[in-house]
Amino acid sequence: MKEVAIIGIGMIKWGELWEKSLRDLAVEAALKCFDDAGVDRVDTIYVGCMSSGLFNNQEHLASVVPDYLGQRFTPATRVESACASGGLAVRSAFLEVASGMSEYALAVGVEKMTDVDGGEATFGLATAADQDNEAFHGVTFPGLYAIMANAHMDKYGTTIEQLSQVAVKNHYNGSMNPHAQYPFKVTLDQVMNSTKIADPLRLFHCSPITDGAAAVLLVPVEKAKALNKPYAVITGIGLATDTIALCQREELYNLKVVEKSAQRALKMAGKTIKDVDFAEVHDCFTIAEIMVMEAIGVVEPGKGGPAVMDGLTALDGKFPINPSGGLKAKGHPVGATGVAQICEAVNQLRGESGQRQLKNAGTALTQNMGGSGASSVVHILEARS
Amino acid sequence: MKEVAIIGIGMIKWGELWEKSLRDLAVEAALKCFDDAGVDRVDTIYVGCMSSGLFNNQEHLASVVPDYLGQRFTPATRVESACASGGLAVRSAFLEVASGMSEYALAVGVEKMTDVDGGEATFGLATAADQDNEAFHGVTFPGLYAIMANAHMDKYGTTIEQLSQVAVKNHYNGSMNPHAQYPFKVTLDQVMNSTKIADPLRLFHCSPITDGAAAVLLVPVEKAKALNKPYAVITGIGLATDTIALCQREELYNLKVVEKSAQRALKMAGKTIKDVDFAEVHDCFTIAEIMVMEAIGVVEPGKGGPAVMDGLTALDGKFPINPSGGLKAKGHPVGATGVAQICEAVNQLRGESGQRQLKNAGTALTQNMGGSGASSVVHILEARS
Repeated sequence: MKEVAIIGIGMIKWGELWEKSLRDLAVEAALKCFDDAGVDRVDTIYVGCMSSGLFNNQEHLASVVPDYLGQRFTPATRVESACASGGLAVRSAFLEVASGMSEYALAVGVEKMTDVDGGEATFGLATAADQDNEAFHGVTFPGLYAIMANAHMDKYGTTIEQLSQVAVKNHYNGSMNPHAQYPFKVTLDQVMNSTKIADPLRLFHCSPITDGAAAVLLVPVEKAKALNKPYAVITGIGLATDTIALCQREELYNLKVVEKSAQRALKMAGKTIKDVDFAEVHDCFTIAEIMVMEAIGVVEPGKGGPAVMDGLTALDGKFPINPSGGLKAKGHPVGATGVAQICEAVNQLRGESGQRQLKNAGTALTQNMGGSGASSVVHILEARS
Repeated sequence: MKEVAIIGIGMIKWGELWEKSLRDLAVEAALKCFDDAGVDRVDTIYVGCMSSGLFNNQEHLASVVPDYLGQRFTPATRVESACASGGLAVRSAFLEVASGMSEYALAVGVEKMTDVDGGEATFGLATAADQDNEAFHGVTFPGLYAIMANAHMDKYGTTIEQLSQVAVKNHYNGSMNPHAQYPFKVTLDQVMNSTKIADPLRLFHCSPITDGAAAVLLVPVEKAKALNKPYAVITGIGLATDTIALCQREELYNLKVVEKSAQRALKMAGKTIKDVDFAEVHDCFTIAEIMVMEAIGVVEPGKGGPAVMDGLTALDGKFPINPSGGLKAKGHPVGATGVAQICEAVNQLRGESGQRQLKNAGTALTQNMGGSGASSVVHILEARS
């Protein structure tokens, strides 16, 4: 298997982007990535997108994206695994380069969620859950994560203050991210007094509905070395799936799919979590960040909440999590999220994150989740120059 | 890049399967494939599906399929490129094995299209066309292929008899296929007098709406050798994309995307079309089969229609096309079609196709198309024992 490097990243400002179409978003992020990498053509394109069919009445992005990007005839593939579609697009691009099939592989994550109203967006997102056993009966994602939050609180004594502190931390980080949808700080009081969504989750415990895109360019490591500038290598990838329905799991207070995917990625990289300096993880709801901390081994099961309060995962903590602001502050255009996590990791590894630059950023972990922990993809990235 | 073999195929009876769900179909085909290969677990799963979001309100098949197949925690990925999703799933599984990431890679194609009514199915299928420039304005796929048919007739003098003979041939082949949705013969008169759909295309020039699934199992070639029974190797894969909208192509009487993908696959295999014995191609409309014949080089541009009348592509012709019955007779559950083409090719290469077995089946080509020629994936398969 060839060693694979990332030589370009492309992030755009996320938000409610009424003036931009689905294809505009994908092209804008891809062109920024081309600029960053210094290329104007690629050998293959992977598009991560959860549901352009339901959100935009447009499937077949594997044709739309190369077409509008001026890459006619280029091989292209769309991959989907709900909110893990972006991470999966990067994994697929990795395999294409690692196998020797292609040299320049672009992975673009994109989602345009505001072309439909809020109810339709919630309906579309619910298709990431089990239609027969969950969504059809009316449960949506805030409800599913609320069930997990209650289970975690019941099992470990996790508190609403702890769930809220995740939002405070991530918004603080996001306030320094020019691409974030909500680049402002929030207080613990604001979070704890925000509108109730699904008990115990309040508005500020939930990631928003977002339009956005992100892109990364993968090449064999020899190509990266020749550029004489900092780059990142992907040394580990772990992918796992679990039961689509929450009701079919033995325990609701952990995320086994995250544990499996992290273990696989770390094993492939020949590392343990102690070798990792920071992480970008899937905080679709703040309870998810706490459960992911435990699943990837940053803390023991049940210790996630207290560790957040202690500042372990703060920007200046021992194991910073979501320096970008996470899904919470940066936004969550579902198919783009996994790619954006890798953009942030590479940006940190290259030492180019400005105000929110971490002091110690040699090895990163990214974790991107689908559904209520029904799929997870983890990447291990290392700085090289 | 490792050499990759196919050691298992799983086909089920296709049709309007009211009694089976999307997940039933995928699982049934996968289990038949497991039986054929003699395995009960895999390392990775690829699901090819065009639009379970619009047809079944269920995205995230990368979680649903391993879950219901008893393969909990198995890495899985859904790929989509409209009606080429199945072929693309096989290509992705190929890369996973070729790269060394996995050994046992299952590719399942599935589509359950009758959970919605005919109008909604047509709307769903139209999301494979350009939403902004085509579908939104009311054109659907029969209309797009009718435009291409008219252009081909105008340029080359292709006749309605020639378009009709493709259906006669494919239904004759399909009458011997126990998995076909419509396993019966039709006469030239029946085809030419069937209901007009979009001038010049009539009902029997169009493939149907179908529920179905198909699966194949890929492994490194050493694993296949150890089994001491006939198998197939994938020696070439070509993927290409073109403009999503028909109106942005220079010519409407050819399929450049098919030409590019076939050239790439043949080059990778170190072959020309003269080395290929037969093909399974994407006859979503009978004009498509004629245009694909020309694009892959079986005949010169414009000679497809006469060649069909001369019997070149008949079961006993010099270059049989669609021995399975093609999309026309076998049915077209869009995400499953590309995988089923490969099942038929492998079945023929193994000499196990019964009544419709070809005499000369050493090298096969499969061609799977997305949209109105906006994406195409071609595989070259060779018999080994």
